[in-house]
Amino acid sequence: MKVLGIDPGVAITGYGVAEHGADGSLRWRAHGVIRTPAGDLLERRLERIYDGLCALMEEHRPDEAAVEELFFGKNVTTGIAVAQARGVALLAAAQRGLPVAHYKPSQVKIGVAGVGRAAKDQVRYMTKTLLGLPDLPKPDDAADGLALAICRLLAPSSLAFSQS
Amino acid sequence: MKVLGIDPGVAITGYGVAEHGADGSLRWRAHGVIRTPAGDLLERRLERIYDGLCALMEEHRPDEAAVEELFFGKNVTTGIAVAQARGVALLAAAQRGLPVAHYKPSQVKIGVAGVGRAAKDQVRYMTKTLLGLPDLPKPDDAADGLALAICRLLAPSSLAFSQS
Repeated sequence: MKVLGIDPGVAITGYGVAEHGADGSLRWRAHGVIRTPAGDLLERRLERIYDGLCALMEEHRPDEAAVEELFFGKNVTTGIAVAQARGVALLAAAQRGLPVAHYKPSQVKIGVAGVGRAAKDQVRYMTKTLLGLPDLPKPDDAADGLALAICRLLAPSSLAFSQS
Repeated sequence: MKVLGIDPGVAITGYGVAEHGADGSLRWRAHGVIRTPAGDLLERRLERIYDGLCALMEEHRPDEAAVEELFFGKNVTTGIAVAQARGVALLAAAQRGLPVAHYKPSQVKIGVAGVGRAAKDQVRYMTKTLLGLPDLPKPDDAADGLALAICRLLAPSSLAFSQS
């Protein structure tokens, strides 16, 4: 199974692609970010994110997607923007019939590093280790995309939510 | 100029189409709602909203779109859902190169009923009157879509925001 992990954001959407190898081990396939210019109109930025994700799905042909759920901290305005980006990411997956697993940040930490309160650095270190990468994946948003993909690949089904 | 007003929501997305007639008066063209089944997966519901809006844009060929901006009340969870629906609405507009005006609820009230604290019923009554409709437009979400279209048609440019 190949999974595309997506960490949505209007300025930077991180992604990572990983799969199970023939021996059951985890294999890295790709990671990176889709950036949109700060000066662009919101609707144009959302279109870029959507187009970028469609191109990735076309190139990597994942079997499933894993998308970060929103965590609302103090900044509701940022949360609205992220939710709009998340909407176009979910649309791209739905249009290709990809099942989507929705993970909260704490679930990614449990899935990748074993504890819900793991530090971000710890999650990134485990991402590197589990995929056998020579270095920590960068930038952070791309590392988060990879962690989401790993989380889905390692997750018992009880961890993979379908949000209705 | 013909405007498609959109009031986004995951369960119900309201819309209204109105334009300036040859004599400069406002003319009603259409209004209604796109409903999505509560039991469906979120990504599937977003796809339905997107497909519905694309079909409306195809049918009515608006020159511009007017989309309600998010107002966060007490319920942040609802706000996230609405923002995801708003994301796919903005994407549909961007893909057709439609300029998008973003209006806060208070701006719609000012634009249609003259005061930012107008009651919802007052806005709906003015929507009916301005468009010469025989009855109040229903359901409420469709009336809100029409009010957004009217707001754009009547708005001085200072009221029409492009949110970056």
